[in-house]
Amino acid sequence: MIHVRRGFERPERELVRAFSELSSATVYEASGRKGAVSNLIRPAYWGIKVCGTAVTVQCGPGDNLMLHKALEVAQEGDVIVAVTGGAYEYGYWGELMTVSALARGIAGLVIDGCIRDSEEIVKMEFPVFCRGFSIRGTTKEILGLINYPITLGGVVVNPGDIVLGDNDGIVIVKKEDAKDVLEKALKRVANEEKKREVLKTGVSSVDYNNLREVLDRLGLKEE
Amino acid sequence: MIHVRRGFERPERELVRAFSELSSATVYEASGRKGAVSNLIRPAYWGIKVCGTAVTVQCGPGDNLMLHKALEVAQEGDVIVAVTGGAYEYGYWGELMTVSALARGIAGLVIDGCIRDSEEIVKMEFPVFCRGFSIRGTTKEILGLINYPITLGGVVVNPGDIVLGDNDGIVIVKKEDAKDVLEKALKRVANEEKKREVLKTGVSSVDYNNLREVLDRLGLKEE
Amino acid sequence: MIHVRRGFERPERELVRAFSELSSATVYEASGRKGAVSNLIRPAYWGIKVCGTAVTVQCGPGDNLMLHKALEVAQEGDVIVAVTGGAYEYGYWGELMTVSALARGIAGLVIDGCIRDSEEIVKMEFPVFCRGFSIRGTTKEILGLINYPITLGGVVVNPGDIVLGDNDGIVIVKKEDAKDVLEKALKRVANEEKKREVLKTGVSSVDYNNLREVLDRLGLKEE
Amino acid sequence: MIHVRRGFERPERELVRAFSELSSATVYEASGRKGAVSNLIRPAYWGIKVCGTAVTVQCGPGDNLMLHKALEVAQEGDVIVAVTGGAYEYGYWGELMTVSALARGIAGLVIDGCIRDSEEIVKMEFPVFCRGFSIRGTTKEILGLINYPITLGGVVVNPGDIVLGDNDGIVIVKKEDAKDVLEKALKRVANEEKKREVLKTGVSSVDYNNLREVLDRLGLKEE
Amino acid sequence: MIHVRRGFERPERELVRAFSELSSATVYEASGRKGAVSNLIRPAYWGIKVCGTAVTVQCGPGDNLMLHKALEVAQEGDVIVAVTGGAYEYGYWGELMTVSALARGIAGLVIDGCIRDSEEIVKMEFPVFCRGFSIRGTTKEILGLINYPITLGGVVVNPGDIVLGDNDGIVIVKKEDAKDVLEKALKRVANEEKKREVLKTGVSSVDYNNLREVLDRLGLKEE
Amino acid sequence: MIHVRRGFERPERELVRAFSELSSATVYEASGRKGAVSNLIRPAYWGIKVCGTAVTVQCGPGDNLMLHKALEVAQEGDVIVAVTGGAYEYGYWGELMTVSALARGIAGLVIDGCIRDSEEIVKMEFPVFCRGFSIRGTTKEILGLINYPITLGGVVVNPGDIVLGDNDGIVIVKKEDAKDVLEKALKRVANEEKKREVLKTGVSSVDYNNLREVLDRLGLKEE
Repeated sequence: MIHVRRGFERPERELVRAFSELSSATVYEASGRKGAVSNLIRPAYWGIKVCGTAVTVQCGPGDNLMLHKALEVAQEGDVIVAVTGGAYEYGYWGELMTVSALARGIAGLVIDGCIRDSEEIVKMEFPVFCRGFSIRGTTKEILGLINYPITLGGVVVNPGDIVLGDNDGIVIVKKEDAKDVLEKALKRVANEEKKREVLKTGVSSVDYNNLREVLDRLGLKEE
Repeated sequence: MIHVRRGFERPERELVRAFSELSSATVYEASGRKGAVSNLIRPAYWGIKVCGTAVTVQCGPGDNLMLHKALEVAQEGDVIVAVTGGAYEYGYWGELMTVSALARGIAGLVIDGCIRDSEEIVKMEFPVFCRGFSIRGTTKEILGLINYPITLGGVVVNPGDIVLGDNDGIVIVKKEDAKDVLEKALKRVANEEKKREVLKTGVSSVDYNNLREVLDRLGLKEE
Repeated sequence: MIHVRRGFERPERELVRAFSELSSATVYEASGRKGAVSNLIRPAYWGIKVCGTAVTVQCGPGDNLMLHKALEVAQEGDVIVAVTGGAYEYGYWGELMTVSALARGIAGLVIDGCIRDSEEIVKMEFPVFCRGFSIRGTTKEILGLINYPITLGGVVVNPGDIVLGDNDGIVIVKKEDAKDVLEKALKRVANEEKKREVLKTGVSSVDYNNLREVLDRLGLKEE
Repeated sequence: MIHVRRGFERPERELVRAFSELSSATVYEASGRKGAVSNLIRPAYWGIKVCGTAVTVQCGPGDNLMLHKALEVAQEGDVIVAVTGGAYEYGYWGELMTVSALARGIAGLVIDGCIRDSEEIVKMEFPVFCRGFSIRGTTKEILGLINYPITLGGVVVNPGDIVLGDNDGIVIVKKEDAKDVLEKALKRVANEEKKREVLKTGVSSVDYNNLREVLDRLGLKEE
Repeated sequence: MIHVRRGFERPERELVRAFSELSSATVYEASGRKGAVSNLIRPAYWGIKVCGTAVTVQCGPGDNLMLHKALEVAQEGDVIVAVTGGAYEYGYWGELMTVSALARGIAGLVIDGCIRDSEEIVKMEFPVFCRGFSIRGTTKEILGLINYPITLGGVVVNPGDIVLGDNDGIVIVKKEDAKDVLEKALKRVANEEKKREVLKTGVSSVDYNNLREVLDRLGLKEE
Repeated sequence: MIHVRRGFERPERELVRAFSELSSATVYEASGRKGAVSNLIRPAYWGIKVCGTAVTVQCGPGDNLMLHKALEVAQEGDVIVAVTGGAYEYGYWGELMTVSALARGIAGLVIDGCIRDSEEIVKMEFPVFCRGFSIRGTTKEILGLINYPITLGGVVVNPGDIVLGDNDGIVIVKKEDAKDVLEKALKRVANEEKKREVLKTGVSSVDYNNLREVLDRLGLKEE
């Protein structure tokens, strides 16, 4: 059994950078409403955004050995995406790992588990999405898997997929769909800009979204 | 079946404005401890307060068609109060709806469900109370009901009731009780002001609240 | 039955002060990974830290009579640590009690329940750790126990134990272990300082933590 | 505002009876995978099945006034389907209401809340699906709505829709789709009968379900 | 500090026996709707009932030392009522303790935690109400308290109070109220017997419960 | 990437059979209190027991393709042990798969997710441990992993490990520890037999377990 896989493709760096200027909701819509991670995985502090290519990690329960290994496997611009088999309440990640991640250009961490040293991590402005905080330490003695497909909050993540998160949530874009999704997302952005201006004038949202006919078709009755 | 009702009374504007200067906890006490909404419905960001008259909305699960209609039905100073049948994890409300709400003078949103575009909504300073955040979009194809009684976090809300929320939670004041509640609340405020000054001097909270006799009556024994 | 016990020992003030400069995670590690309180009890607002000696309180469900009594029993530098028998959703603590606590030099509150008047409490910068917020008021008619052992989020707390909480969570240090734990914690801090500097240079976290041999022993295979 | 609606159509009795011989899972599949109610609403005891036409009820929180009214509105063969605005932990239904329901030929109860007198209800063999049990009694003082659309465990239920529940869960079939769904369900049953016989012989489930080519297409690799 | 208290009064045996023939729901109603324990504490198997006088136990988290001590303190007809400070997932009670309890005439166990050896306990027909089952063993090294007031599922239990549980839930009757509650409960039973006979004839539940006037007063409108 | 691994060792059949006569709690204790799976994974019906060697399966969320493949990979006496990445509410397993499993001599299913066709599965007496029941069907289009280590309810399971479950819960015994654990478990059984006989005579559980000295050492005080 191979535990660590390295030979996977990443999308072009330019493509990933373009996603970093979009919101997760816009990209989710442009993806045809696929890839929304459960909202129990939240930003560790207000106002952060994460964008990069996934290096996937399966930790043993209450063990962060594979996260240390992932720091070695991940490349600049990667986001470490980790699952913990449902053993959430441990501090899987802390200050020193953040120092190491920043030194190596890693773009962020998304973990379905808890972290600790949160105040130091905030100061370093490293983007982390997690279940919460816990001072309970981990062991370093269980082998897991790196760069195998994982399920993160109900979504399959493959190594190299694009991970985009902000305060609304996290969306996963399959690497093979990335170009197409980007294009559609940019169109949505342009479109929404216009809508915003019109709605500011007080135009009815029902009219502007052509919902009058939907309501009629469904037989809406008003008093 | 009538889906949208418009013919209900609202309390006078002055009365509502007076509530906006009170805290939810004070008004809850003045109401005889009635009308406290479940604390799972929280302010979307720190430091907001909502106060207005309820326009009640029953959305289909994962569908925001009726919220668009509510934007049309609600008047200046109204708060849209919506339930989603327990299907919480959808982004029922977003940036464009907020633009529309602000253009129409709507005072805020209370929803037993999630929202999205949270960063933009914070910038616009529109007060939202919700279950959390979700990028998952909604459909626009299910008829619901507007201005029928709903149950919000364990409290019945009728159209025209006063909705007051801050970081401690949300209280619903029935429109027919509003005047009476306001009067009692203002008395409490005056009273608490005095208490604060006395307690600052280090006077015992037990003495000041006449709890010494309560403890004695209950038979408290100290070592 | 004695309800209120007063005759217990507190650790020396200097010792407690020394803990206030450490993080909860460090102290938890130095304690041999004991004393971590469940992470459902959270800081009431961002950036607070609590440190002091426990005065333990057992409230009746939805009743805060014993918290008023505790304000009288607690001494300067004490932290009131209260449990509510699982009846979380009440505002057990509010503004006036905070005024009283500050007037008496109480160091903070940790409660496995909710509080209210949160905005005023933030302004007064009184550190509170709690389950959340609730406007629902309490009664003042049930006798409980003060300074008996309690279980707080899975950890036994005895009166006089040291309570240390920050954004990562809360750790309880038994008073008899405090000196020893402090010593070990200070060593950890010195040690981590060095590690941080090395890891900033980009050295592998696997190498630096001697995990290479762990991975080898466990039979890690890479592709 | 009209609280109780009576003028809705029910599917033919024969059609409903035909559904009663099918399993909820089969009907859910035949519906195109629509109408699955959340699995938190469970049979009150082992081995029951419910099948009938929905009379929908919206109760006030902790109030069963409208369930009494529903006993009057419901006809033979109807299932009372009730929601409680998320205020689950009350005994909304009991022995006497069951006696009344049986006397009037009502086919069962589905409630997103709790019941009480469970032992007597079991003896009477009246099928109930609920969240659990509670001895906490209800009030009888809040008006709700009867025969308006409700959302039950994530599914919109309209009066007259077919409700089918067994140990696997509950499925709602819209009345306008009932004929079509029944036809498809009967085909599935016939089909599954054959499959069962073949699989008993030990034939591979992968082969029999034509999954070999799916696995190949997806690039499955075996060691 | 005294850990184990023995000097408390129990209600007369005859009184307790009389309760054992009533249902928990009836007694809860006769108590003026007080004393309902949270419904998360459930019968360990179908069809059991518990009735006796409370011996209250506070265990350390994951520790059952005090339950062994309680076996010694409890008398014939007592129910051991234990809380575990929220550390539910341990097997606090097992087969051998059940053997011991039966040998000493103990009437049952109510624990806000889990048990193990459930199949053997079922065979011995010892009534247990608990949160669930767990094979995780406990330590025997933490002192707790016996026969101090505890909060069980939101209700204060004092030693000597009557504990009555069946499939609907558990009700606690304060010993000082027991006679009065019994009397009221017996009246309810007689009354319900009559109601049952009338409702069997198909009489409307609305009429029989005089709800017609309630509905009229509230302004019910029917279509 | 290899998805399906076959080359792992199983413990001897005799050894596994010996475990099937022990209870999960006994084996957990004999394992040095390791391997207890979360109690949220429960027997699908009362009175079942599962014992066999693990074939581990990682399904995509809401997808059972790999369970079909596992039916082919598993051998007589194996237990299929599956995780679903936290996407619990789907019917991952049903009647036809059970027919297939029985035809191939598979010993049972443990899944951290739901199943459907529960009534038929009960009739076939196939042991299933699961989170609950759901009629929601799965897709068959996501590749997962077979016979890689998984985390089941907080415990790492490797292919070939022994899985033993009964009403108290599930314990995992590493294959390399199996012989040793069996021996210790048999000793415990013999020992408990004696204890049971003694405790039946009414001997104090405190005395019999030598807890008198523990209580004394801890300083227990009685009134």
